[in-house]
Amino acid sequence: MGNQIRISEIFGPTIQGEGVLIGQPTVFVRTGGCDYRCSWCDSLHAVDSQFRDAWQPMDVDAIWADVEHLSGGVPLMVSLSGGNPAIQPLDGLIAHGHQRGYRFALETQGSIARDWFADLDVLVLSPKPPSSGMETDWIALDDCLNKAGTKPQTVLKFVVFDEADYAYAKAASARYPHLPTYLQPGNHTPPPPEAVDAVIDMDGIMSRVHWLVDRVMQDRWFAATVLPQLHVLLWGNKRGV
Amino acid sequence: MGNQIRISEIFGPTIQGEGVLIGQPTVFVRTGGCDYRCSWCDSLHAVDSQFRDAWQPMDVDAIWADVEHLSGGVPLMVSLSGGNPAIQPLDGLIAHGHQRGYRFALETQGSIARDWFADLDVLVLSPKPPSSGMETDWIALDDCLNKAGTKPQTVLKFVVFDEADYAYAKAASARYPHLPTYLQPGNHTPPPPEAVDAVIDMDGIMSRVHWLVDRVMQDRWFAATVLPQLHVLLWGNKRGV
Repeated sequence: MGNQIRISEIFGPTIQGEGVLIGQPTVFVRTGGCDYRCSWCDSLHAVDSQFRDAWQPMDVDAIWADVEHLSGGVPLMVSLSGGNPAIQPLDGLIAHGHQRGYRFALETQGSIARDWFADLDVLVLSPKPPSSGMETDWIALDDCLNKAGTKPQTVLKFVVFDEADYAYAKAASARYPHLPTYLQPGNHTPPPPEAVDAVIDMDGIMSRVHWLVDRVMQDRWFAATVLPQLHVLLWGNKRGV
Repeated sequence: MGNQIRISEIFGPTIQGEGVLIGQPTVFVRTGGCDYRCSWCDSLHAVDSQFRDAWQPMDVDAIWADVEHLSGGVPLMVSLSGGNPAIQPLDGLIAHGHQRGYRFALETQGSIARDWFADLDVLVLSPKPPSSGMETDWIALDDCLNKAGTKPQTVLKFVVFDEADYAYAKAASARYPHLPTYLQPGNHTPPPPEAVDAVIDMDGIMSRVHWLVDRVMQDRWFAATVLPQLHVLLWGNKRGV
C-alpha cells in the first residue's frame, strides 16, 4: 500500500560488483526513470522513458515479497539503484526492511536530495564526469550530503574514461576530503537496452583498467581506491547477475 | 641497522588485489621463508628454501629506502606478506613507517603469533583449508587474535577450492563471529617459482569464481564477502603487479 515505486527489475542475491561494497551478497532493487542521460549509460533499460512500459508500479509490500523470496528471508544488503532511485519514494521500503534486519545502500548521481537519505546504511554519490555529457549540480550534491548527515557510510564513486574524467574526479574528491573516493574504469561497450547478454570488448575494458591503475600510481593519488566493475569481468554484459 | 629481515621482493605501488583492502594503492614487502608448504602456494619463490639465495637480508633502513623510493615519499598502505611474514622481526619497520604516516597490513596463516601484531593497522588471518594439505593450529590462531588486540582491523580470509574447503571456511568463520569473513576462489594454476609471467587457466579460474558465488548465495551465507584475486583477473600470473 501507500506510494507506488516504479521498478525496472529486482534480482539477486549476487555479489555487489562495484565500489565500497564489492563482493558483498546483495539483492538489487532497480528503479525506473532518471533525470540524466549519460552517453555511456549501462542501464538504459531503467533510464530511457521509451522502456517505461516495462517499469512496474509496485508498493512496498509487493517489492518486499520479491526481496524476501530472493533472499529466503535472510537479511542482507539491498542495493537501491536505477536510473536515479532518488526520484522514487523509498523511505517506506527502507523502514520496512530495517525492521526485518536488512540494510540499504543507495547509489545516485547526487542531483536530487531526499530527507530519507539519512535512513540509509550506505550512500554512494556518483557525480558524472565530462565524458557522460552531463553537468554536475554541486549545490544539489552538497544538499545530498547535508540530508544524509552522519548515519550512512557515504562515499564518492567516479567513472573514469579519460584524462578529463580523471581531472574531474580529482577535483571533485578534493572538494570532499572526508569522503572515501572510489575510481571505476568505464565500460565503453555498455549493453544496448534490448539485450540481456550483449557482446562486450573485454580487451578494451582491461586496457582501461590498466591505464587507470597506472594513472593513479604515477600521480601518487594513494587515497583513491581503484576497482573495476567486477560483475563485468566475471559475467560480461549479462543482465541480472 | 638492528635485526635483519629476509626479503624476497619489494614492489609497487599497485592496487591490492585481494580481500578487505582490494583496490587500495599498496607497496608490497614480501618476506622470504614459511613454516607452511601449501599444495597450491602461489608464492613459492618466497616460501621454498631452495630459493633462499634470492632472499636478501635487509635492515629497516634499507627496506625503507626502497619503500620510500617506490612511493615517492607519499604515505600509503604497506602490505607485509610472504611466505609467512610473522617469522620476521617486523616491529622496527612498522614503527619506522608509522612515524612517517604509512600504514601496515600483514597477511599470515596465523600459525605464529607476535606481540607486534598489536602495532598493525590491518591483520588478515588466512588459515589454510584442507586442499592446502596443511593442518590448522587453532591455539596459535587464537593467540594471534589475542596478541593483535583491538587496534588492528582484523579479518579472516579463506581460499576455497572445493566443498571441503567451503565447509572448513564456514566452520572457522563460525568460531570467530565478530570477524568479517572474506572468501577467495583459488588459483589452481599458480605460477611456478621460476616464472615471472606464467600461463594461467583463466577459464578454470572464472568457473571457480562462479561456483563460489553460487555456493554462497544458495547457502545464504550473506555475511561472507566473495572476492576473486583481482590482480590475477587483470594481470594473470605476472609477478610484481
